Amino acid sequence: MVSATPAYAALVAGQLRLHRLQHLQAMATWDRMVQMPGGGAAQARSAAQAEFAALLQDLRDDPAHDAQLARAEQEALAPHERRNLALMQRNRRRVQAVPAALVAQREALGSAAMGAWMQARAENDWARFSSALSPLLALVREEAARLGEALNLQPYDALLDGFEPGLTGMRVQALFGEVAQWLPDLLEHAIARQATTDVIEPVGPFPVAAQKALGERVMRAIGFDFGAGRLDVSTHPFTGGVPEDVRLTTRYDEADCLSALRGTLHETGHACYQQHLPRHWLGQPLAEPPSAALHEGQALSFERQLAPTAAFTRWLSPLLAEAFGAQPAFEPHNLLRLWTRVRRGFIRIEADELSYPAHVILRGQIEQALFDGRIEVDDIPAWWDERMHALLGLDTRGDFRRGPLQDVHWCQGMFGYFPAYLLGAMAAAQLRAAMARDLGDLDTQIERGNFSAITGWLDTRIWQQGSLADGEELLRRATGQGYTPAVLRAHFEQRYLGAAA
Amino acid sequence: MVSATPAYAALVAGQLRLHRLQHLQAMATWDRMVQMPGGGAAQARSAAQAEFAALLQDLRDDPAHDAQLARAEQEALAPHERRNLALMQRNRRRVQAVPAALVAQREALGSAAMGAWMQARAENDWARFSSALSPLLALVREEAARLGEALNLQPYDALLDGFEPGLTGMRVQALFGEVAQWLPDLLEHAIARQATTDVIEPVGPFPVAAQKALGERVMRAIGFDFGAGRLDVSTHPFTGGVPEDVRLTTRYDEADCLSALRGTLHETGHACYQQHLPRHWLGQPLAEPPSAALHEGQALSFERQLAPTAAFTRWLSPLLAEAFGAQPAFEPHNLLRLWTRVRRGFIRIEADELSYPAHVILRGQIEQALFDGRIEVDDIPAWWDERMHALLGLDTRGDFRRGPLQDVHWCQGMFGYFPAYLLGAMAAAQLRAAMARDLGDLDTQIERGNFSAITGWLDTRIWQQGSLADGEELLRRATGQGYTPAVLRAHFEQRYLGAAA
Repeated sequence: MVSATPAYAALVAGQLRLHRLQHLQAMATWDRMVQMPGGGAAQARSAAQAEFAALLQDLRDDPAHDAQLARAEQEALAPHERRNLALMQRNRRRVQAVPAALVAQREALGSAAMGAWMQARAENDWARFSSALSPLLALVREEAARLGEALNLQPYDALLDGFEPGLTGMRVQALFGEVAQWLPDLLEHAIARQATTDVIEPVGPFPVAAQKALGERVMRAIGFDFGAGRLDVSTHPFTGGVPEDVRLTTRYDEADCLSALRGTLHETGHACYQQHLPRHWLGQPLAEPPSAALHEGQALSFERQLAPTAAFTRWLSPLLAEAFGAQPAFEPHNLLRLWTRVRRGFIRIEADELSYPAHVILRGQIEQALFDGRIEVDDIPAWWDERMHALLGLDTRGDFRRGPLQDVHWCQGMFGYFPAYLLGAMAAAQLRAAMARDLGDLDTQIERGNFSAITGWLDTRIWQQGSLADGEELLRRATGQGYTPAVLRAHFEQRYLGAAA
Repeated sequence: MVSATPAYAALVAGQLRLHRLQHLQAMATWDRMVQMPGGGAAQARSAAQAEFAALLQDLRDDPAHDAQLARAEQEALAPHERRNLALMQRNRRRVQAVPAALVAQREALGSAAMGAWMQARAENDWARFSSALSPLLALVREEAARLGEALNLQPYDALLDGFEPGLTGMRVQALFGEVAQWLPDLLEHAIARQATTDVIEPVGPFPVAAQKALGERVMRAIGFDFGAGRLDVSTHPFTGGVPEDVRLTTRYDEADCLSALRGTLHETGHACYQQHLPRHWLGQPLAEPPSAALHEGQALSFERQLAPTAAFTRWLSPLLAEAFGAQPAFEPHNLLRLWTRVRRGFIRIEADELSYPAHVILRGQIEQALFDGRIEVDDIPAWWDERMHALLGLDTRGDFRRGPLQDVHWCQGMFGYFPAYLLGAMAAAQLRAAMARDLGDLDTQIERGNFSAITGWLDTRIWQQGSLADGEELLRRATGQGYTPAVLRAHFEQRYLGAAA
């Protein structure tokens, strides 16, 4: 049969081929994080993955694509095909804007910066980190400038656009500025209110095998398909693999039965999203998640919106007792208190949901300033200290380890991602509110461990949508609004000040 | 710097690139056997690996290679470089002799035959297997004919040549015919002699965690580098991965603490060989093991030559007691009896070393007849029954499951491999004898768990040699002889008839 849209069909076949090849790269990356031996194996793996990345890059760069894209433009495409083509063109513009040599150089400098970061963090040595980050930043600035020129965007906006099409630094500053206005007060009130509440700590040890079994039970209840994925262990939990075989990880602490579970709930949100991306378009840009913020939003829908609720803890309480033996800490109201405890801290990834935005806001401000050229790498600590003091009342001076050396993002050359964490929190709050509006009270189902109404609602409105629209547009269609601090604020006030409780 | 041997340098770079890319394929295969989810994940993995295999095939088929090979022939190469080039040319001749379409069709038929085999084996259904194997055999016969034409070899010899360069069916029949002459008598005497010996069975259960820890301890003692490899579990134990990251597997039975250990010793032999291939040539044909038989020989050097000795069991005995608690079965002399017990059985992979050759001989005879055109697939059962009766005195009529349906090789289209198992047993016996000649009595070291003299000897003569010479030539250099049944016979007589004990 001759295709009526041969150029488009060729592009689709090429995308599918890339998807299949990337499968192997994704699995090799997962293996590296989870189980690769620590010795000489790493060097061979790096060489293998770099070789394969170059090969994939060559396939993506195939000059024949430009002519195919132009011809496909003229073909009679269905609307979703036209969207798919537009996404291909968008990706192509980004790939073409940056010379391959620059990408390769950035990866090399990123590798070096990663090594410097690990040592600098261990030794609280800002100068070591700074001297590795500066040349990397210079390169990312050049990349951002080139992308900006090609896309007619400011440099930092061009980076943001890679994680959330259409997002600008100005928009981020406006949204985050709003949060920064009400957050410190809200934090203070929540902490004051909790000062008089007794919380019972769970008493361990909690054997890893029992924690793993419980985590898998919760994942199964939420709807994770173990025929198309696995749960394993890694130092830094993540969700990897491919949509057909989603590999998520957690890490266990035998003294703490809740932290791994919270992490597993987070990654299960990412993982279910991956498993439910539109299967019939898999491999096409149309089947990809449209934005990093929306992805974070799915994770937070389970970790932050669902888990710390009275109904969920009523379901979870007997499971914990069954797994580890009954104890007072496992009473539902106490679990809820444990999971909503607010404490100002230095470390982003350990932060509760109420202080978390502060960590993101300060990073967003620093990134914006770095790409505006207002500051250089060595100005970061002063900015950090000032904002941590303003937002969280903490003194971070001289403590780089618990300050700007805590994250891996920048030393990987990853600038423009941080905002996704707070936009994701907004999205999760908005999705939860819209769900309540559409579905009414779900507590009875949740108490019985039946989450199908929640996952079904998300599946229809977000997961199955793939990239039919950009992230914020999907959010708007599902909830009636784009990223909105007000709904997050209302959620915080209800949960922490009991405004509507 | 301009290379004085530019064509050769380009070929070397191309080989290194392939080595790096194959790394990802090897890891994906290992993952599939060890831990891939059983559901929809498998289909995506098959598609990914097939896509990648096609891409690797394209890279190998690059027509530019022929000109490079011809130019390199004229360049001033060192002897080892010239050998490397000759190996490239040998590989190229094999690749070019078989059209890519035939290879692809064989893989497709092999996939189908694999499915049919699994079902046929479960249902003892010869007809189902036969109807899937027949078209596959027809294709492999065509492949063998084409290879034979290109290499000026008989068809079956061309297949053997792929696993052991230079090996012919006539040679195999001569070597195996010799074994077939003395084996039945030897078996009978050994069994009669053991009839009066008491053997104490170990009493389980033996927890998997303790078995795994013991296995790793033994691997470490033998010299396996856990910085460049892992031990895991799979239904069918194998050694996979890449030389820089060797992944071996075993399977545990909580009722039997010795079977996994024996399997682990076998795979550790393969694995140490892989880890000790010449590192500076890695990626080049020169660094590859030259023959399947020599590879099996390394595995058997540990499993069959080293382990069932008085000295080794004296070392192992306290480790078993430490792992599982002391019991009479763990006494060294009893371990030795357990590990040298001879019993005629139907299943090759469960066979003791003395009846094992019979299983290989009958398969070798059937393969030879299939490719001579003397028999067709449906003649296999009758040949099987007759030879199992002649060699082992067993009646296999109508019992296909424990007869010709027991192996995976043929339904994968893998003909010509079986002889390697018996040649490997010969090689292991010869290596052991030569080691004794060169190094004298090693019992004191072995009793202390010090195997460095053994591994050092093998490392120098076999492992580090890569493919500097063909398999049999390396064996000859190390031991003074090519594959020789007489040394295997002497080993059997000494161990089972106590001729020299």
